[in-house]
Amino acid sequence: MEKWFNEIIDENVFDIGARTSIKIGKTLFEGQSEYQKLEIVETPKFGRMMILDDCVMLTDAHEYAYHEMMAHVPMFAHPKPEQVLIIGGGDGGTSREVLRHESVKRCVMVEIDGLVVEKSREFFPALTTGLDDPRMELRIEDGVKYMEDKVDTFDIIMVDSTDPVGPAEGLFSKDFYKKVYAALKPGGIVVAQAESPYYFQKTQRELFEVLREVYPYTALYLSAIPFYPSGTWSFAFASKQHREDSQPRWEDMKAMALELEYFNPEIYKACFALPNFVKRNLQF
Amino acid sequence: MEKWFNEIIDENVFDIGARTSIKIGKTLFEGQSEYQKLEIVETPKFGRMMILDDCVMLTDAHEYAYHEMMAHVPMFAHPKPEQVLIIGGGDGGTSREVLRHESVKRCVMVEIDGLVVEKSREFFPALTTGLDDPRMELRIEDGVKYMEDKVDTFDIIMVDSTDPVGPAEGLFSKDFYKKVYAALKPGGIVVAQAESPYYFQKTQRELFEVLREVYPYTALYLSAIPFYPSGTWSFAFASKQHREDSQPRWEDMKAMALELEYFNPEIYKACFALPNFVKRNLQF
Repeated sequence: MEKWFNEIIDENVFDIGARTSIKIGKTLFEGQSEYQKLEIVETPKFGRMMILDDCVMLTDAHEYAYHEMMAHVPMFAHPKPEQVLIIGGGDGGTSREVLRHESVKRCVMVEIDGLVVEKSREFFPALTTGLDDPRMELRIEDGVKYMEDKVDTFDIIMVDSTDPVGPAEGLFSKDFYKKVYAALKPGGIVVAQAESPYYFQKTQRELFEVLREVYPYTALYLSAIPFYPSGTWSFAFASKQHREDSQPRWEDMKAMALELEYFNPEIYKACFALPNFVKRNLQF
Repeated sequence: MEKWFNEIIDENVFDIGARTSIKIGKTLFEGQSEYQKLEIVETPKFGRMMILDDCVMLTDAHEYAYHEMMAHVPMFAHPKPEQVLIIGGGDGGTSREVLRHESVKRCVMVEIDGLVVEKSREFFPALTTGLDDPRMELRIEDGVKYMEDKVDTFDIIMVDSTDPVGPAEGLFSKDFYKKVYAALKPGGIVVAQAESPYYFQKTQRELFEVLREVYPYTALYLSAIPFYPSGTWSFAFASKQHREDSQPRWEDMKAMALELEYFNPEIYKACFALPNFVKRNLQF
């Protein structure tokens, strides 16, 4: 008999009224950490799939559309990113993309849930290639606490979190973004996964209210990710100084695009174009 | 008890391995025409929804992301679109967008299935506002046959069809696109709904093979449409002369964007930016 996984994010907390169903095969791992429920299953069409608290996190087939867009947009907006911090990102995909950049001297990844890292190493070898890079500093601890005493330290901070319920709740607060601001160098940029522009309009408004109180420049950019609710996902971009159009490194983008599945210079420019309903919701 | 509609496109013909489920309420209409099964249902979150042969065609909530992008991209790429032909488009949404353009003198819509038009008038009044416009010429007949003897007639032709199975099968053939070519004026542009770049890569390759044999210029552009498979949809753009970047009417776009939900000048530019996997699949 056919088995289908039905994402039930809507029945949890967000009453979306729509969900994605994905045909699945064997369950490879199922377990409960201190923080969340983790499942890893096979799918006949999309490779392996990771599910956290009943929400699809990634599939082998489409993970690049998230990880490349989270990492390369801020990295290429910055003239020379050397010190990078990833909050969350336990599956390793974002760090893999960050470490493609030769300018990077250190990439700190602070993931609260060691089980996600452990099982990603086991079941998603293509995502975790960066974890053993000598420039990588992997810490299993609370990202909010890690930030407490960091001042003027990072060029880029990436908030690669789950939804703003459960372990990631604190990562959408003003207090957190003030700490991020302090931890960034003067030319620093923060990006954060910012949910679906179709289904999470209130969450987005609240996030930008916070960001605009703390940062002089904010923007939103989009990526097409099939298994995230609505199929379109967004990332918040906030900085002390650099805008996405200040001094992007076009030639470097062009070269790196050759080894990527999604990101390229045209996409860099295009992803900041927002439909009217998004602009109106966020007053862009 | 909660009722959910499960799109079953994959079990029909295309084995996608993923589907969209949408919470539904009352069924407003259910019937079988000579060509296809039509259902119109209420949804608690997205207004009314139209389903043809078990595939979601549109919802009140998101229909603009399809109709605005199908219509306004070719209309603004053309310096002065006066004669427009829509093949399909029975729900009326595309004609509504076409008729926003004051340059239009005549908009012919050739829909094979009269039931779709009749029930759209009844249940989707916001989509069918254009159908009684004096510039509108509505014909219930086979679009392929209608094209037979049309030469040098239209500035823009829009192929607003269902998937390339069932009644729309002929709308993906070389023979059809040769007729479209003949029916276009020298500065003419054709656009066609071109499925998901994630799930229909073979269909897209075949379509572009056809288009490139017939037209000197082809391009692909994207829109974010939550209930179409993968959430990202594409449109083929082919022309005898005009490219999307030849002489787009930026000022006119800017003015019209004020009354639209999705389309604006930035989106016009951005929608032609393609992820690497799409470029590679279609050799762009």
